[in-house]
Amino acid sequence: MRSEEFRRAAGAVVDWIADYLEHAERYPVAPRVAPGEIRAQLPPAPPEAGEEFAAIFADFERLLLPGLMHWQSPNFFGYFPSNNSYPSILGELLSAGLGVQGMLWATSPACTELETHVLDWLVDLLALPRRFHSSGAGGGVIQDSASSSAVCAMIAACHRASEGRAAREGLDRRLTAYTSSQAHSSIIKAARLTGLGEENLRLIDVDAQFALRPESLDAAISADRAAGKTPAFVAATIGTTSSMAIDPIAEIGRVCRRYGVWLHVDAAMAGTAAVCPEYQYLNEGLDAADSYCFNPHKWMFTNFDCDCFYVADRSVLIDAMSVTPEYLRNRASEGGEVFDYRDWQIPLGRRFRALKLWFVLRSFGIGELRRRIRAHVECARQFADWVRADPRFELAAPPRLNLVCFRHRSDDETNRRLLESLQQDGRIFLSHTRLNNRYVLRMSIGQTRTTIEHVRAAWSLIQEFAPPMA
Amino acid sequence: MRSEEFRRAAGAVVDWIADYLEHAERYPVAPRVAPGEIRAQLPPAPPEAGEEFAAIFADFERLLLPGLMHWQSPNFFGYFPSNNSYPSILGELLSAGLGVQGMLWATSPACTELETHVLDWLVDLLALPRRFHSSGAGGGVIQDSASSSAVCAMIAACHRASEGRAAREGLDRRLTAYTSSQAHSSIIKAARLTGLGEENLRLIDVDAQFALRPESLDAAISADRAAGKTPAFVAATIGTTSSMAIDPIAEIGRVCRRYGVWLHVDAAMAGTAAVCPEYQYLNEGLDAADSYCFNPHKWMFTNFDCDCFYVADRSVLIDAMSVTPEYLRNRASEGGEVFDYRDWQIPLGRRFRALKLWFVLRSFGIGELRRRIRAHVECARQFADWVRADPRFELAAPPRLNLVCFRHRSDDETNRRLLESLQQDGRIFLSHTRLNNRYVLRMSIGQTRTTIEHVRAAWSLIQEFAPPMA
Repeated sequence: MRSEEFRRAAGAVVDWIADYLEHAERYPVAPRVAPGEIRAQLPPAPPEAGEEFAAIFADFERLLLPGLMHWQSPNFFGYFPSNNSYPSILGELLSAGLGVQGMLWATSPACTELETHVLDWLVDLLALPRRFHSSGAGGGVIQDSASSSAVCAMIAACHRASEGRAAREGLDRRLTAYTSSQAHSSIIKAARLTGLGEENLRLIDVDAQFALRPESLDAAISADRAAGKTPAFVAATIGTTSSMAIDPIAEIGRVCRRYGVWLHVDAAMAGTAAVCPEYQYLNEGLDAADSYCFNPHKWMFTNFDCDCFYVADRSVLIDAMSVTPEYLRNRASEGGEVFDYRDWQIPLGRRFRALKLWFVLRSFGIGELRRRIRAHVECARQFADWVRADPRFELAAPPRLNLVCFRHRSDDETNRRLLESLQQDGRIFLSHTRLNNRYVLRMSIGQTRTTIEHVRAAWSLIQEFAPPMA
Repeated sequence: MRSEEFRRAAGAVVDWIADYLEHAERYPVAPRVAPGEIRAQLPPAPPEAGEEFAAIFADFERLLLPGLMHWQSPNFFGYFPSNNSYPSILGELLSAGLGVQGMLWATSPACTELETHVLDWLVDLLALPRRFHSSGAGGGVIQDSASSSAVCAMIAACHRASEGRAAREGLDRRLTAYTSSQAHSSIIKAARLTGLGEENLRLIDVDAQFALRPESLDAAISADRAAGKTPAFVAATIGTTSSMAIDPIAEIGRVCRRYGVWLHVDAAMAGTAAVCPEYQYLNEGLDAADSYCFNPHKWMFTNFDCDCFYVADRSVLIDAMSVTPEYLRNRASEGGEVFDYRDWQIPLGRRFRALKLWFVLRSFGIGELRRRIRAHVECARQFADWVRADPRFELAAPPRLNLVCFRHRSDDETNRRLLESLQQDGRIFLSHTRLNNRYVLRMSIGQTRTTIEHVRAAWSLIQEFAPPMA
């Protein structure tokens, strides 16, 4: 492809994206395709001769687009928002064009320094503990996801608990970890991937609001110690996936400190809310955390992937992860004055992801970020009121921030059928969970273009599809 | 940012990228900045009010651009190519605009199906073993990097060797792994991250061409078995980072089969060469491999990140990695007819990376990919001839594919000074390694716009900077 064709093709793609995002309501949110249906339309081999971009793009529209979920639709209320925005798309575009590698400071100093800088900005903006700021012993790094942050945190915790022996000799089978029964599945996955083992991760029970019980955590750690185990890691959550429950971080922190256990806090979705001073109470007690993460790629208008991961003592993480072959040695790294982010993550290579976050923060500005977050929270509050006012429905958890968990008062099967009929209708998309062993619908509000009108229309549709009480 | 501003700003960014890539020679390849110099110019906080994109972009050009390494310059010969191309950039742009999540088939069927399809295309195109094709028990997935593929392969291997106990009970301290002393540092890192432990990874010695000695591998596995260990994993390399050495895969495969050990093959850079029939000998013996990876984001004109990871038996990988909470359950997954790629990787979320690979394969076409790869290899062959013809220099390893390792015949210090003076001059960028305990320069040729003229000019510059023999 020549430069002229690229300019022309990119112009067309840009216009297509703008039209798509402005009018995403046109599409049914969830696709209606059967397994294998998309593939069956694709040729069995790539072409011998290069094709015109217009032909390739036409195939995208004709063959692939009908098989996509429209995550950016204002009527997408499933899972988590994963929202994007124009400045973020521009950041991803520029990053792709530059094609730099930020594995070492030396391989693109501005890539590393902008990342450190923007993550320091967020420490102040979100009122995170000062110990996560890079000016001290800590610092932040962009990971692809909260799952990877959990893996890195668990590795660092096991490294510290074993006084460095884990990385050299292999993981000690006596190490144990703790999280709540409501924690994200990525914590269990991390226990499998790091060699700790799922059975050595204790799932601590929760209170009526689905928050971890610190006294149960204390008892579990204490029992493990008495049994000769080495408690190494606790993962607490600010805003669980199922119900946006907030674990009591301050009390959990006191337990962790008492036993010298690493505390990781996952605020993947809820973390963004702390741009508003009135939600900074969420971070209360975070001073005791050894690591923390939240995802601008969920609710901060920044394309996936962008998870901000902070550690209070970067030396532990680096010491656990770092392996330096000759071909990566350089004066700057040896001088010790720079961050080499390859040592803060699983992959070696890394693209220039700070660019999109920098574009978003500057293009929106703090004021506009706050307005957007408040508007989403207000939508959820309003939606919860509507649920309360309909005698057929009940709230299944205290509504918090941008998530409302609710259910038809009848049985699980009715709720399942309601969800499936809504998904098949296609005008909106919701997903589900189980709380107190009951099937529950989740209304997750946070798409860039979602307004109260979309939420009102969604509620009308839910009411329309919902059967009367038996 | 409104739609109109986005269209205008994106047009400007697209033009900037095209100009940048067409004229990347303008810039010194390596930046000349001191640690902290970039950050010192950035404001201490994001703005309260949103800024115009033009102002943000002006800051990018003024403050950040001078601090970047120009990886896409045709005069970049360091590390590995990491090349991009116009169709790939368009793929990344469109993926960012769509903002879909491909964690489950159900969350965007086309995202999953295109990925499976394009990775099947590559099985045929590169003459990879049929067992990696998704129509059987195997299949391919896009990972962010060969490092992550190594971690996933090692986890699957330990899972199989422990009959599934590793994920549940924690890694057995008797498990051992093997790779050559020339393998990439990511294999050592994987041993640290998975809980296997660096000391349980045996670094097998190599022959005069830096390839793993299968008889040494056999002896090491045999000795470990006799000592009560459980050999679980071997990582072999097609094209080592330091010298492009090719491990004897067929013989290594026989050793692995004899002992029932998982064989992972890393062809991160060299793998792309197999688009040319004359380089498909590289994959000889790969039938015995349990997993394999190569990086289109290195030499196949596809932006980072895009590593293609294949397994012969996907059920082992999925069984090791999968954790299914209620909120991810859906009919398609339960029907068992679909791939949910979240179970093939560490993160849960995933963006639509197959799009850029599909764009590249269709826009270039097989013929053009072959022409480009052959041209790069021819550049390297020519460069090696020039090295041979200058009595001050010698080849430090057999030149292979797109890599030439060479050195000034004098001491390490002379070579180090030569490299640093070239890096400081800035017109070209090379990096280094150590081979046979001697400091060696690496000429890695594979940037999208690199031609024989760039390579000739680079050699002239090296000759000019090189001192006479002492």
